[in-house]
Amino acid sequence: MYAIGIDIGGMSIKIGLVDNNGKIVEQIRFKTDKDSSVAISSMISNIKSLLANNKVESEKLLGIGIGCPGSVKSEQGIIEYLPNLGWDSVDVRSPIEKEFNVPVKVSNDANVATLGEVVYGCAKGCETCVMFTIGTGIGGGMIINGKLFEGGFSRGAELGHATLIMNGENCTCGRKGCIECYTSATALIKQTKEKMLNCSDSIMWDYVSRDINNVDGKTAFECSKKGDKAAIEVRDKYIEYLGESILNMLNIFRPEVFIIGGGISAQGEYLTNMLEEYCEKFDYGYKRAPRTKIVTAKLGNDAGIIGAAALLI
Amino acid sequence: MYAIGIDIGGMSIKIGLVDNNGKIVEQIRFKTDKDSSVAISSMISNIKSLLANNKVESEKLLGIGIGCPGSVKSEQGIIEYLPNLGWDSVDVRSPIEKEFNVPVKVSNDANVATLGEVVYGCAKGCETCVMFTIGTGIGGGMIINGKLFEGGFSRGAELGHATLIMNGENCTCGRKGCIECYTSATALIKQTKEKMLNCSDSIMWDYVSRDINNVDGKTAFECSKKGDKAAIEVRDKYIEYLGESILNMLNIFRPEVFIIGGGISAQGEYLTNMLEEYCEKFDYGYKRAPRTKIVTAKLGNDAGIIGAAALLI
Repeated sequence: MYAIGIDIGGMSIKIGLVDNNGKIVEQIRFKTDKDSSVAISSMISNIKSLLANNKVESEKLLGIGIGCPGSVKSEQGIIEYLPNLGWDSVDVRSPIEKEFNVPVKVSNDANVATLGEVVYGCAKGCETCVMFTIGTGIGGGMIINGKLFEGGFSRGAELGHATLIMNGENCTCGRKGCIECYTSATALIKQTKEKMLNCSDSIMWDYVSRDINNVDGKTAFECSKKGDKAAIEVRDKYIEYLGESILNMLNIFRPEVFIIGGGISAQGEYLTNMLEEYCEKFDYGYKRAPRTKIVTAKLGNDAGIIGAAALLI
Repeated sequence: MYAIGIDIGGMSIKIGLVDNNGKIVEQIRFKTDKDSSVAISSMISNIKSLLANNKVESEKLLGIGIGCPGSVKSEQGIIEYLPNLGWDSVDVRSPIEKEFNVPVKVSNDANVATLGEVVYGCAKGCETCVMFTIGTGIGGGMIINGKLFEGGFSRGAELGHATLIMNGENCTCGRKGCIECYTSATALIKQTKEKMLNCSDSIMWDYVSRDINNVDGKTAFECSKKGDKAAIEVRDKYIEYLGESILNMLNIFRPEVFIIGGGISAQGEYLTNMLEEYCEKFDYGYKRAPRTKIVTAKLGNDAGIIGAAALLI
């Protein structure tokens, strides 16, 4: 059996044919049209190509899953608002369901990534799991009793928009001091730049070829591995911000596994070991608290496609 | 049909016979023995009395539910740690189950209170619901997809131990700046006293008969209703702390209903109207976010018994 997974992004749409082991048999990528009806037509024709290319008959197709950023009304199959493209109340389910006559499910991209990791990735078979997808912002996902929980009205899981520091830094959501303001890749880059401007002798300057515009989410981590004092200070403060944010989720959900996704997950155990050490010190119930394993995501760039396909499992 | 609900507290144990409308037919209260085996024997003999008094045969008994403070391993029916009494790894389920041969379920008191409100109280039939029980500390409860969710390992829901202000006030849990440090009744009393010491002309001094030891969770609220400036300042700051804490839960869970329990819930709509107004301003997604109703708990002092009985529903 197969499922189609669709990953709608602001720049491009990726569609994959996924087998029941979570392997992508073939995938197609094309530019996202600002006009949603054009984009949906492209999705339909590309799904047809994938099915034809791989001789997948409709009785072998479990359904079609779609993940996208922004807010989604999952139960109605409607993308309520997709800021980058300006899509507003777009019914993606009906036209696709009508064309293929199989179940079509839609969810937020961070939810879908979490589901993918639990079904096929780093947290296989996990009953309770929470994930941060760390990028421009923080995407949140929750698995509860083995099932994806999107929040009431399918509109929760905005884990990055809980406060870490009340009345702290301005957040894009209109509040102040949200987790996202301190732990996103954007925030880490800002923290790195601020430190560099005060530390002209840091090797971070060499790492970015003396151009501060080259700073990215790796700069502080890579230079801290070389023992650079300024980089270590940035790293340790970031671990504190992220560690405190994760601890909040542990005390609320007490998950078996906490997953870190997004570019920063490339730091692997260098990152997760520091986070586990931080959390162990301050975890509610101290030695009595069941330990949550902190791991990095496994599905990488394919998370969107594989996770969307997992909506049909 | 009937269920027995048991509310274990540090001072006393309350046992009630509850009918399937959530009404307490009869209840018994006795002092909690520090020796857990003595306490369990008392529970058994009192359950027998309740069943005999009301002529409830075993085939009319759905089971026995138990709620208690501290940490509970629900799946094993074990009270892992009950700080006030020093109970450590006490199996309450086995001896009671053996005696009555009906299902016995155990959970944390704040979880049980939340379940009671959803089954019989202010949030009847709600699918997604979050509750703060505001007292000495903050008890948390979550209903997800219509079912009680205790967190992984039945050990989450410590909603009061997520940070509101990282590196803020010292918390009893070992961290700093937890929600509990700013929003518990203990915290409100502290905030009220601090303000009074700086405002000798506040009518709060009259309200407490000029003895600061008489300050309680009502002082600031009642005096703010009379227009006292200092009291209004305490109230508004407390609404900000509690409002921000609730907003965090709304963004994570997007519940249909958020419940405020504990002594402060006596403030009713005076409190919930201010909280709803605060949350509407800063809710994620602004006007697009589905609105969460904020309500006060309905079951009051009977929440422990009724909620414990609801574990059998």
